[in-house]
Amino acid sequence: MDPRVRDHAEVLVDWSARVEAGDDVVVSVAEGAHELAVAVAERLGERGANVVTTYASDEVARAYLLAHEGAFETGAHELALYENADSVLFLGGGRNTFATADVPGETRQASARASQPVREARMDTDWVSTVHPTRSLAQQAGMAHEEYREFVYDAVLRDWEALADEMANMKEILDEGSEVRLVKGDATDLTMSVEGRTAVNSAASVAYDSHNLPSGEVFTAPYDPEGEVFFDVPMTISGTRVRNVHLTFADGDVASFSAESGEDALADVLDTDEGARRLGELGIGMNRGIDRFTDNILFDEKMGDTVHLAVGRAYDACLPEGEAGNDSAVHVDMITDVSEDSRLEVDGDVVQRNGVFRWEDGFEG
Amino acid sequence: MDPRVRDHAEVLVDWSARVEAGDDVVVSVAEGAHELAVAVAERLGERGANVVTTYASDEVARAYLLAHEGAFETGAHELALYENADSVLFLGGGRNTFATADVPGETRQASARASQPVREARMDTDWVSTVHPTRSLAQQAGMAHEEYREFVYDAVLRDWEALADEMANMKEILDEGSEVRLVKGDATDLTMSVEGRTAVNSAASVAYDSHNLPSGEVFTAPYDPEGEVFFDVPMTISGTRVRNVHLTFADGDVASFSAESGEDALADVLDTDEGARRLGELGIGMNRGIDRFTDNILFDEKMGDTVHLAVGRAYDACLPEGEAGNDSAVHVDMITDVSEDSRLEVDGDVVQRNGVFRWEDGFEG
Repeated sequence: MDPRVRDHAEVLVDWSARVEAGDDVVVSVAEGAHELAVAVAERLGERGANVVTTYASDEVARAYLLAHEGAFETGAHELALYENADSVLFLGGGRNTFATADVPGETRQASARASQPVREARMDTDWVSTVHPTRSLAQQAGMAHEEYREFVYDAVLRDWEALADEMANMKEILDEGSEVRLVKGDATDLTMSVEGRTAVNSAASVAYDSHNLPSGEVFTAPYDPEGEVFFDVPMTISGTRVRNVHLTFADGDVASFSAESGEDALADVLDTDEGARRLGELGIGMNRGIDRFTDNILFDEKMGDTVHLAVGRAYDACLPEGEAGNDSAVHVDMITDVSEDSRLEVDGDVVQRNGVFRWEDGFEG
Repeated sequence: MDPRVRDHAEVLVDWSARVEAGDDVVVSVAEGAHELAVAVAERLGERGANVVTTYASDEVARAYLLAHEGAFETGAHELALYENADSVLFLGGGRNTFATADVPGETRQASARASQPVREARMDTDWVSTVHPTRSLAQQAGMAHEEYREFVYDAVLRDWEALADEMANMKEILDEGSEVRLVKGDATDLTMSVEGRTAVNSAASVAYDSHNLPSGEVFTAPYDPEGEVFFDVPMTISGTRVRNVHLTFADGDVASFSAESGEDALADVLDTDEGARRLGELGIGMNRGIDRFTDNILFDEKMGDTVHLAVGRAYDACLPEGEAGNDSAVHVDMITDVSEDSRLEVDGDVVQRNGVFRWEDGFEG
C-alpha cells in the first residue's frame, strides 16, 4: 500500500474525527475507496473504536432508486444506526462520477426528503467527508491517475495545526470586522456586512467545526451585499458546466446575472426560492497544497489565493445563537481567483492583496 | 448483466427472505459481490423495502483485527442496526478465501465473543446467506470462472416450491420415525435415534426455517448413535484438508476416530468440549442441481445423493419446545456419498437406496 494512504487515514481518524477508544464509528465506503477503507479500519482498530462499514455504492443506489415505486420511507434500522453513532467517516471516490446520471430528479428528491431524519442524525455526529483518489476522480479533474494522487495527498497531508493557527488570523479579522469589500479588475467590487457573524476556522477537524478533509478555508455568513462580482473559475451545476458568472447585487439580492455558458442552470438555481438570490457564504481559500482547479468543490473552494461566495443557505455555525441566517434549499459556491489584480478589505483595511495576506507581508491598507 | 444474477436476486428477495413493502433490510456485501448487490438492490426497490448496505470486506476486517489491542466491545450502533432490522441478506463471495489467514485465532475468538449480541440480533431476523460466484470461489472449487457460474446458478435457480414438496416426504418420514440406520459398504453401519425430534425441510426460505441459498436438505437432531461411519467426501477444518474420516460411536459418544489426512485438525474439533464428541445433525442432501463437491459446505452438504452428520451443536428448530439439544462451541459437518452401495432406513424400512428415494421408485424395504 502507498504509505500516503495510511497517512491519509491517520489524519482522518486522529486530526479530523478525533476518534477515541470505545467510540462507535460508521465508515461509509464508496465503490473505489476500498484501499482507504483498509487503512482507516487499521487506524480505528489501533484506536479501539467499534466499527460498522457501510457500502456507499452509486450503482447499488441507482438500481434501488430506479426500481422503487411509490413513497420512500426512512428505515428504522438506518436511523437507529446513526442515532447510536459517535462519528461517521465518508470515504468518497467512486468509479464513475455519472453513475446515477439517469435517475430522475424527482426520484432523487423524493428519496432525499424521506431520508432527511437519517441525514440529520448523521450531522449530529462527529462526521468527516473525504475522498480516495480514484481514476474516476482523476478523469473528472482532467489528470493522470498518479498525477491526481499527488494532487490529493498534497491537499490532504498538510501541517493542519500550523494552518489552523494561520487561519485564526483571518477568523479574528472577520469576527471583529463589520464590512468586507472584494475588489478585482474592473468587474468585481462588492461590499457586504459581516457584523455580528462568526467566522469558522475550517481546519479539517471536528474540533474546529470543520467536516471536510481536505479543508483550509475561513468562512462566514455575509449579508446586505451591494455591487458586482465576477467568478472566473468554472463550476458544474446539476451536470452543466457554468463559466464566467457575473452577478450584480442591489438591496441585498441578485439584481441581474449573466454567464458565458450555462446561464440556464444558473437561472434555475437563482429561481429556486427567495433565499437563492441572497448570499449564504463568504469563504477565503487558504490551502496552498491545492494548486489547481479540478471541478470538485471539496478541493476548489479551499484553494489558496481564491475567494468564494455562495448564494443560498447560510451555515448555522456562523450565526449568533438562536438567529436564523439566509434560508434556502440550495447552497451554490462560486469561486474567483484573487492571485492577481485583487484586494480584500475589512472595514477599509486591506487584508489580502494579490493572494498575499497582511500577516505575511505587513503591508498597510 | 448476466440475467442469472437478476434471477438469483429474485429468488433471494422473494422466495428466500420473503421481503415485503416497508421491511427494513440490511444487505451485507462481500468484496466480490458488487454485481449481485446491484441486482438485489433493484429487487428490494421494486418491493419497496428500506435498505442499509454494509461492506463485508475481509481485507477491512483483517486490518481492523490485526491492529486492535485490548478488549473488543459491541458497538451500540451496530446492535441498534440489527435490532431494528427485519431481514439481513448476506451476499458472500470474496476475492481471496484466505484473506484473513494471518489473523491469530485468539483475536478472532475475542472479537467473536464481543460480537455475540450482534450475531444473536441478526439471527432474530429473517436472515438469508448466499454467495455470488467470484473467481476466488471458483478457484477454491478447482473450476474455471464461467464453469463455476454455471455450477452456482444450477444450484440456486431451482424450482424451490417443487423441491420443498418433495422434501416434505423426507421430513414426514423422519418426524414419524424413531430410529435411523445408515449403511454403506463395509465401513458404515450407524444407527441413531430421532424420536421426538422435528426435521427441518430446508427449502432455502425463511418460511421453512431455512436460511441458506442454495439449500435443499432435510435435517434433524439425532442422538444416541451406535456403530461406525465413514465419510468419503473431503472437508476443510480450520484451513486443514481432512480426508476419509472414520468414526466409531459407543454410548452416544465418539469412541474412536481416524482420518487418512488431517487427523490432528479432527482431534482438535473432538476435544473442544463434551458436546463435540456427540452428534448435532443428520442431514439428507436433496439438491440435484449440485453435481459435484466444491469444498464449500454451503453447497457440499446440500448435494443430492449425499448424507451428512455433524458433531457438535444441534439446531433448536429440531428440538421440542424448551428442550436443550446437544450443546457445543463447534458444529462440523462431514459428508458421505450415498449414490452407490448404500441405504438409509427408518425403523427398518428403506427410505433411500443408492441415491433413489422410496417415493421415486416405490421399492419395498
